Amino acid sequence: MTVVLKLGGSVVTRKGEPETVDEEALDRAVRAVAAVAPDDLVLVHGGGSFGHPAAEHHGVSRSDGTHDAVAVCDVHRAMVRLSEAVVTRLHGAGVRALPVRPLSAGARDAAGDLSLWPGSVETMLAAGFTPVLHGDVVADVDRGATVVSGDELVAALSADLSAERVGLCSAVPGVLDDAGEVVPRIERFEQVADVLGGSESTDVTGGMAAKVRTLLELGVPASIFGLDELGAFLSGETPGTLVEA
Amino acid sequence: MTVVLKLGGSVVTRKGEPETVDEEALDRAVRAVAAVAPDDLVLVHGGGSFGHPAAEHHGVSRSDGTHDAVAVCDVHRAMVRLSEAVVTRLHGAGVRALPVRPLSAGARDAAGDLSLWPGSVETMLAAGFTPVLHGDVVADVDRGATVVSGDELVAALSADLSAERVGLCSAVPGVLDDAGEVVPRIERFEQVADVLGGSESTDVTGGMAAKVRTLLELGVPASIFGLDELGAFLSGETPGTLVEA
Repeated sequence: MTVVLKLGGSVVTRKGEPETVDEEALDRAVRAVAAVAPDDLVLVHGGGSFGHPAAEHHGVSRSDGTHDAVAVCDVHRAMVRLSEAVVTRLHGAGVRALPVRPLSAGARDAAGDLSLWPGSVETMLAAGFTPVLHGDVVADVDRGATVVSGDELVAALSADLSAERVGLCSAVPGVLDDAGEVVPRIERFEQVADVLGGSESTDVTGGMAAKVRTLLELGVPASIFGLDELGAFLSGETPGTLVEA
Repeated sequence: MTVVLKLGGSVVTRKGEPETVDEEALDRAVRAVAAVAPDDLVLVHGGGSFGHPAAEHHGVSRSDGTHDAVAVCDVHRAMVRLSEAVVTRLHGAGVRALPVRPLSAGARDAAGDLSLWPGSVETMLAAGFTPVLHGDVVADVDRGATVVSGDELVAALSADLSAERVGLCSAVPGVLDDAGEVVPRIERFEQVADVLGGSESTDVTGGMAAKVRTLLELGVPASIFGLDELGAFLSGETPGTLVEA
């Protein structure tokens, strides 16, 4: 059973402090993964205070690209530094983690659609490793190179690997309603459109509205939960908000 | 016109000196690439004094794998350090180089056959970048992770990209005959079997016999030449030894 788990950039890094790992949060996440990792676990993490400042500095986003190779490598290396921190801690906890770089395994066509080759991830899983992907830059036929978010990778991996469960470990305990309570289940976007800003919201930052819309299209049960519930999710429970169309 | 050029590990590093770039040789190679790079140039480099000691230390080769993720990352990082040195110098010379990691873009099946996804390389070329690959470790279904050589990558890229020319810039000026003279053209292995050690030679280190056999199978004209002739090769000439079945 393949499980795709994303550790949010805001969970594993200190937002606002450039290139700073949240050591305590990352250690908790790593301990949870080491304790109850399913057989076929694919990890993805976001950019947090590593990728986002570098991408902003160079004016690169999912829609705005650059043909400057130095800028591309600058953003990529920032994300590799975070990935190395995550992978090294996983090794320390006995998890056989291997990095997969979206810049090498992915690309965008002229329509901006992402191709992500699943071959290395599949083979790593078959050989007993735990692949670790991350938000990154990818070559883009028309725009040079553009950003690929962790959420976009989760969607691509979920489809390509026929994942049975998807988890997004975020800085909040789930999708919250007007009263600040976790919405236990979302089957249609309209259920939460009011509280998330509506389906017309131009949410380009990977915020909650975009996450929910992406997850509703997966065709796979997806949970959004906080770090406190990561162990429960990995044990097979559905903490936080379950998103399933 | 797509050209695949391999810079030998023995050209760009000092063999015998652990993780030491041959600065002068690398600078010469980079200047040649910057001066006369064809439109669609794909670069590959070998491991030299970076990859080989790390792989030997962990007992990993093309046939002997490891399931130890720390060992895999140790070999991979050694090659990434060399790749970063190459890419950074290319940037300094104005070449829009981007790294492609075989660990992310490749894998071996149960028969040991290599799959290398050409999508990122193709998209980088289409967007005007120069992809840089390197000898590496790749996930291997049965053996955990095994070494992939620069020569093996050249063969895979040549086929996948329908390359029109292949060049191997090596520490020698070509395939040498008994008298130490460059053999100008090889069409069948038997022509050079005596001097290269015969077709039964168990050449697992990527030596000249294995290179010639691999190049004869490409179906593309391939040249083996020394650093002095790199500019000539990139200009469209066929210096050194031309290998074409």
